[in-house]
Amino acid sequence: MNDLSTIDFHYRLKATDGAARLGEVVTPRGIVNTPAFMPVGTAATVKGMYPEQVRELGADIVLGNTYHLMLRPTAERVAELGGLHAFMRWPHPILTDSGGFQIMSLAALRKMNEKGVTFRSHIDGSYHELSPERSVEIQGLLGSDIQMQLDECVRLPASREEIARALNLSLRWAERSKKAFERQPKGRALFGIVQGGDDAALREESARGLVDIGFPGYSIGGLAVGEPQAVMLAMLEVVNPILPADRPRYLMGVGTPEDIIESVARGVDMFDCVMPTRAGRHAQAFTRFGKINLKNARHADDPRPLDEESDCPAARDYSRAYLHHLTRCDEMLGAMLLTWVNLAYYQSLMKGIRTAIGEGRFEAYRAEVKDGWARGDIPPRG
Amino acid sequence: MNDLSTIDFHYRLKATDGAARLGEVVTPRGIVNTPAFMPVGTAATVKGMYPEQVRELGADIVLGNTYHLMLRPTAERVAELGGLHAFMRWPHPILTDSGGFQIMSLAALRKMNEKGVTFRSHIDGSYHELSPERSVEIQGLLGSDIQMQLDECVRLPASREEIARALNLSLRWAERSKKAFERQPKGRALFGIVQGGDDAALREESARGLVDIGFPGYSIGGLAVGEPQAVMLAMLEVVNPILPADRPRYLMGVGTPEDIIESVARGVDMFDCVMPTRAGRHAQAFTRFGKINLKNARHADDPRPLDEESDCPAARDYSRAYLHHLTRCDEMLGAMLLTWVNLAYYQSLMKGIRTAIGEGRFEAYRAEVKDGWARGDIPPRG
Repeated sequence: MNDLSTIDFHYRLKATDGAARLGEVVTPRGIVNTPAFMPVGTAATVKGMYPEQVRELGADIVLGNTYHLMLRPTAERVAELGGLHAFMRWPHPILTDSGGFQIMSLAALRKMNEKGVTFRSHIDGSYHELSPERSVEIQGLLGSDIQMQLDECVRLPASREEIARALNLSLRWAERSKKAFERQPKGRALFGIVQGGDDAALREESARGLVDIGFPGYSIGGLAVGEPQAVMLAMLEVVNPILPADRPRYLMGVGTPEDIIESVARGVDMFDCVMPTRAGRHAQAFTRFGKINLKNARHADDPRPLDEESDCPAARDYSRAYLHHLTRCDEMLGAMLLTWVNLAYYQSLMKGIRTAIGEGRFEAYRAEVKDGWARGDIPPRG
Repeated sequence: MNDLSTIDFHYRLKATDGAARLGEVVTPRGIVNTPAFMPVGTAATVKGMYPEQVRELGADIVLGNTYHLMLRPTAERVAELGGLHAFMRWPHPILTDSGGFQIMSLAALRKMNEKGVTFRSHIDGSYHELSPERSVEIQGLLGSDIQMQLDECVRLPASREEIARALNLSLRWAERSKKAFERQPKGRALFGIVQGGDDAALREESARGLVDIGFPGYSIGGLAVGEPQAVMLAMLEVVNPILPADRPRYLMGVGTPEDIIESVARGVDMFDCVMPTRAGRHAQAFTRFGKINLKNARHADDPRPLDEESDCPAARDYSRAYLHHLTRCDEMLGAMLLTWVNLAYYQSLMKGIRTAIGEGRFEAYRAEVKDGWARGDIPPRG
């Protein structure tokens, strides 16, 4: 691999297949092969996984949550300790969110105005302020490779006026974020975030506004927040054609394997979601044959692994009976193994998607994968 | 390594240094180098560790708890699934306890008579009976390599009469257990358990009674249950000289690193304890420099690892600041890393002990190790 350390952030489109894109996000810390799934490392750890395992599964990048990290251990402490990469022993690219979304879902007594957001920590009730400038400063202290502007994400359903107000505030914050980001070292990127709820015209307005400001990459926020999948996909069909083809597109917080493959089909390059890790802690396994609930009593006597053809030791080498037992006993190893299974499945799905786009057979791959899910789990023999 | 599968269980004494013994417990599933520490795999998992990791740290044997396994997933189910070794993916030797100790500490409405124990499960309140015969049957269904007789362990302090009654019951149960064990396949071993509380004469009576019955190995039970360390060591000095030199001696449920080294000095060969795994889940690290509480705020900005000279990645590669953060956030990775640190430390201690006995410098090693603990943790630079 060439020395990337002096290279500026950029996206390279390598192939398309319909609207699906095969590409690379190039950062000084490494290349992110896209379409990419980013495991979520909320509090500087992908829950239940050693960092080496996450890498070995094929993850090129992980996500850190600004809200959690600004509260514990704090951005200043992480910076003094050499940055988030060193802190969490993940030397590869890291993307951080702005903190705004989680303030709205987790913090107490939150208040938003033109300047920014104030809130109290869900951990100790301490008072905090977050502005577009401070969010970028925090992400800079963390040393994040791909940073997000602070935005306002409205819950759906919401009135058109409310959605419009939030997207216009987000556009003004986008400009302030971009200005604040100018102080940061070369090689990092700040993404603007498309808002606009479930309203096609507002989505278009948001996307055009951001493209006018100009960002090295674009996020699509405010989706997968409870609306039907068809609405989300319709919004992608509005937004993606507006976004420049030479910039990566990141659909925030999405999603199920089906959400991902359908969004790739509509031109999305990057994804993150707590689903594989959270499901792993709740006895759920993602496999080629769909989702399997290991708590179900039907697994109690089943000596078969989850998927004997998997490359993942957790899916291939441990019996369903044992996984069932571990989840029934709330043993850590159950969560560790199922998180591993799920991240392995997500990464294998992304690899399959990339290979298929490169070979011009994305449609066939999509059909094949969905057939597997529809067929469902293989019943035990006999 | 020779094919062990047809070899019967035996102990080989390789060297002595004072009362300390270097040896091997030979079983068809593998050799246990002694003095040995057995990580506790209560519910068929050493909490927070992949089985391969446990093995890589140098563990030759792990312990499974009959009480937990008879309730979940049940011995019959484990047997149908091919035995505990296959179930938990630990192909090396396994020792199981009899279930009696944990019935007394965990179960509800327990009642003991000559026949055995009845109790209700702490999980679902279901009613169970455990007799000496049933305990051996369960351990056999699990496929345990080293099994324990059912005994009665009295809480200290207790009257001499109470201790004597329990030890005599335990001797009668030892005979019944031995008889029940005769039905099991060759290669496995059943240990008798020395009781007798903190009374030297009763300890002697128990040990002599068991030696008369005759077992391939002897456990020392009912110690480290709250009495001072000096009492425990005094009891070992009474019991060990009575036990035959050609049989292994297992001190049940012990203990701290200091307990272990002092017990080795008095002729003990095998140990098990939840301490390294439980402490790892409670932010405590065992190191060459003693016990370190990672929750302590003094670690919050400390970039140093727990022990840069350790072979264990968890002790060598992760900063104290990061471990502090993980434990403060109750992240699984914190428990995973500290469990790893602790089991690595325990196994390195056992390896050091074995090497020192083999080289005839056990006293020097004991002094050196205790110096390290007494010196305490290295303060941060600057």
